Amino acid sequence: MNQILHMSNLYAPTLKEDPSDADIASARLLLRAGMLRKTASGVYTFLPLGWRVLHKIEDIVREEMDAAGAQEILMPALQPAKLWHESGRWDDYGPELMRLTDRHDNEFCLGPTHEELIVDLVRNELRSYKELPVNLYQIQTKYRDEIRPRFGLLRSREFIMKDAYSFNASQESVQETYDAMGEAYKKICDRCGLEWREVEADGGQIGGSVTAEFMALAESGEAELVYCSCGYAADAEAGACLARPTLYEVDAMEKIATPGVHTIAELAAFLDIPESSTVKALSGKDAEGNLVCLFIPGDHELNELKIEGVVPGFALLTDEEMKDFGLCKGSMGPVGLPESARVIACASLQAVPQWVVGANEDGFHYVGARLGQDFSVDEWADLSAVKPGDGCPECGLPLDGARGIEVAQIFQLGDKYSRAMGATFMDEEGNEVPFFMGCYGVGISRTLAAIVEQHNDEHGIMWPPSVAPAQVCVVPLTVGDDEVQPMAEKIARDLAEIGFEVVVDDRDERAGVKFNDADLIGWPVQIVVGKRGLKENKVEVKLRRTGEKKDVSLDTLAELMGFARRSMRNNTRAGAGYGSFDAIFG
Amino acid sequence: MNQILHMSNLYAPTLKEDPSDADIASARLLLRAGMLRKTASGVYTFLPLGWRVLHKIEDIVREEMDAAGAQEILMPALQPAKLWHESGRWDDYGPELMRLTDRHDNEFCLGPTHEELIVDLVRNELRSYKELPVNLYQIQTKYRDEIRPRFGLLRSREFIMKDAYSFNASQESVQETYDAMGEAYKKICDRCGLEWREVEADGGQIGGSVTAEFMALAESGEAELVYCSCGYAADAEAGACLARPTLYEVDAMEKIATPGVHTIAELAAFLDIPESSTVKALSGKDAEGNLVCLFIPGDHELNELKIEGVVPGFALLTDEEMKDFGLCKGSMGPVGLPESARVIACASLQAVPQWVVGANEDGFHYVGARLGQDFSVDEWADLSAVKPGDGCPECGLPLDGARGIEVAQIFQLGDKYSRAMGATFMDEEGNEVPFFMGCYGVGISRTLAAIVEQHNDEHGIMWPPSVAPAQVCVVPLTVGDDEVQPMAEKIARDLAEIGFEVVVDDRDERAGVKFNDADLIGWPVQIVVGKRGLKENKVEVKLRRTGEKKDVSLDTLAELMGFARRSMRNNTRAGAGYGSFDAIFG
Repeated sequence: MNQILHMSNLYAPTLKEDPSDADIASARLLLRAGMLRKTASGVYTFLPLGWRVLHKIEDIVREEMDAAGAQEILMPALQPAKLWHESGRWDDYGPELMRLTDRHDNEFCLGPTHEELIVDLVRNELRSYKELPVNLYQIQTKYRDEIRPRFGLLRSREFIMKDAYSFNASQESVQETYDAMGEAYKKICDRCGLEWREVEADGGQIGGSVTAEFMALAESGEAELVYCSCGYAADAEAGACLARPTLYEVDAMEKIATPGVHTIAELAAFLDIPESSTVKALSGKDAEGNLVCLFIPGDHELNELKIEGVVPGFALLTDEEMKDFGLCKGSMGPVGLPESARVIACASLQAVPQWVVGANEDGFHYVGARLGQDFSVDEWADLSAVKPGDGCPECGLPLDGARGIEVAQIFQLGDKYSRAMGATFMDEEGNEVPFFMGCYGVGISRTLAAIVEQHNDEHGIMWPPSVAPAQVCVVPLTVGDDEVQPMAEKIARDLAEIGFEVVVDDRDERAGVKFNDADLIGWPVQIVVGKRGLKENKVEVKLRRTGEKKDVSLDTLAELMGFARRSMRNNTRAGAGYGSFDAIFG
Repeated sequence: MNQILHMSNLYAPTLKEDPSDADIASARLLLRAGMLRKTASGVYTFLPLGWRVLHKIEDIVREEMDAAGAQEILMPALQPAKLWHESGRWDDYGPELMRLTDRHDNEFCLGPTHEELIVDLVRNELRSYKELPVNLYQIQTKYRDEIRPRFGLLRSREFIMKDAYSFNASQESVQETYDAMGEAYKKICDRCGLEWREVEADGGQIGGSVTAEFMALAESGEAELVYCSCGYAADAEAGACLARPTLYEVDAMEKIATPGVHTIAELAAFLDIPESSTVKALSGKDAEGNLVCLFIPGDHELNELKIEGVVPGFALLTDEEMKDFGLCKGSMGPVGLPESARVIACASLQAVPQWVVGANEDGFHYVGARLGQDFSVDEWADLSAVKPGDGCPECGLPLDGARGIEVAQIFQLGDKYSRAMGATFMDEEGNEVPFFMGCYGVGISRTLAAIVEQHNDEHGIMWPPSVAPAQVCVVPLTVGDDEVQPMAEKIARDLAEIGFEVVVDDRDERAGVKFNDADLIGWPVQIVVGKRGLKENKVEVKLRRTGEKKDVSLDTLAELMGFARRSMRNNTRAGAGYGSFDAIFG
């Protein structure tokens, strides 16, 4: 039988007022509901109810990882600097890496991720292709010294991750593990009650060219994403951009006086055409300092990751540097650029025969500048950040946009770490080959916050039953009563015996306080036991999610528990019997 | 059904040779059995099998803590220095406290313990005596920068603790929680299969005058303890000392030439009497620099904690300082000491009418120096370290001695932290009073090592079934065979369905390798499935603990599983069905 919680001795101090420094719904509600407290900037304590949710998410992750053949381990948070020197990341990682020195002056960091440590762990122990693949995971505390911690658990400095690392004998094998992890992550997101999208992503500091993120959709999310009804989805930072410029054609190229016009917005307004009919120019230099001129659709922004891929070391010119190259700020264009300029334009502009673009002369622009006649382009590339309305790279339909919270990411790492750290195995032909690796992370505390972001209303949190701190809250309206409280305790006991997690609000408080706290904390089901109802052998059942309430006889309640008992016999997962309550409301 | 492990893809690299730097059995065996790896000095990684044991210990601790009414939370490891300044421990703790600075130059430490953090958590939120007592615990990673990490998990720098903190409204209440925690700890030790003793202890850096340690008995333990058949037990560092000096009486005090005699051993040999007939003299000074002369039974050592309690700031004199005070090194005695000397002697010497002791003159000692006649003592106190053979302070019988590993400790803290940090509640009379506090710790990773220290033989580890990484290992003697391997898998499945945790050693290895690894890893039960046995419908069952083996028919095995199924229906704890195997051997 599950332990029954009692609000009278549960440490869950709810707050009447919104905390002043909570900048996002999840932080505000977790603090108000007595589940979370801030210890320092970006550093939090999970109170009993918050910890229960956290532990449920961990268990879901653990079950799906085990089912996918991964094996749980536990690595230390303290990582010796020498391993990070081997991979080169000690110098690359920057100030987000928390560093410290022990009493003997040895350098350590507090791991934000564990590639170095795990490569060191398996090298010299995993020796043959016969022992591969191996996929090891841990659920552990991670550290990242964010310059400005915010959004509660979403951008904190000490946080909990599930990180897995696979060692494979071939690209095909790592692809298989990668796919299996992707499938596991879908189940994890579903079981946590998240609305999510798997999106194309960028490798960032971890590295790896094949990678996908799992985004929980939320207005408050830091990430922008685009998606299509065909199933395609991408992080706007990484997705391919198929911009759809609006054609604006004239008979011949014409130089137009545009006094005071220096931005795309001003140009479009001046000409009374959409921004998508204009071409935006950017000037920069490559790693050697050579001039690089970029042209992208006027209604788009340059994607820094993409230009870095095309021109490694690319940097925008300062005003001073533009002058040195003889360029005209605010009116740059492809006609009459310096001979030395490397001209790269967005591939989507290939289909635009006439450009509306700067004339390389302050206060003047061209309309009808003809590609291949009035000017030429050296290279075409995908340079722009994708945005809603662009064409889907898979089916061409216009993309929808959304915001999301990244809760998980999977990477194929190739041999980036195994080669740098000399971690090899003997392949079938007897050759020493560096491991193929993948890494796969789920933000556990982040997922908790994402669930709250998706599941809340003006009254508080609405936990999905699978992760709720308890599924049912029984509320006796009077405490110390001969009938009401014993009946509340009996109902709680019956429910706990079936396998529900139950809390009894046995505090000597007004009904309104209890109802407000129940809604704030977000128990999926509330069962209200009152004197008046009991006279007719009835209790009130309320579903938090819909707010629906219904008077239910004790017989019906017993019947409902019978159904739940049967359905929970084959499914011992948390929240399993919730459907029986849902069914009351048809 | 429990997941079945397979050795062929389990990451458990066993080692044939003892690792060179393993200085204790638990470290040696956990490393050899592929359960643990060293990442840095005092910093370890738990491999899948080690992690499984760790997780089981955590679950046992969690269950007993919950049953005792404690509530689980999770505090951060990163602790702001300002809280430690409030308690005064930032300066007091010394170099064992790992310190670091964030990118904005804020100071933090990695918590070795969490008194400061939790007092900060509850102050201003726990307001009234009505809300008390509250007992909050966490299972979390702790840090202590040991000057010389050693003994594997026993003295490491990153380790896992369960720490609980109670907030009580009165001394009686904290005593109740303290007692409840003690009871929970006894159950935890029992369920982990430990032979243990609860002993009187010292508060150390945590503070608190009422405290007890739970010691796992082990020859390799760092702690010495004494115990009595009456139930009394104490850490030798903290226990009361009832020394039993041997009387040596002569007619009158006599000054004897003892050329070259400077130590108790030399004196006893010279006089041909036991060391327990002599009196040891020590000279020191108090915090103000005043002379303090100590006398203890010759066969005992001074206990530094005890003298600090009697003479705060006590320090032994250097040779130079002894000369300045006119004392004679190697022949000090109570007769003819400087007037200014504060003379303190061990209470057990009160019963010794004549002392054998130095004569304050090099090369001379007294025998028969009569207490109260030839010399006097200013104060009597308990100054000596207790040792086996001393009298039990509760019943007087001679104490036994043992060595132990401290796996848990409970403390009553009084208001040490709540007063320093201004954490108060309103008592029944409406007064603001600092909380009464207790704190209660279990070393989780330490307990794992202690279990191995107690449960091993020359072949490897012998896990108690309750914490074994799996209870049963099924060993098919041939792999890829039509009969043997499928039968092994079937037996494993049947066992897993009942609720056993099972591993199949399906590696294509010689039987000897499998047997050795099974013994090394220490599965409680091995079931060996071979071609020859199967011809007679038999398998071999072996108990790791006793080494007993028996051929058992498949029918008997099925019957045994029936018993186990019934006993495990009411007891879902890990290892519950083990008794059925035990029963085979009567």
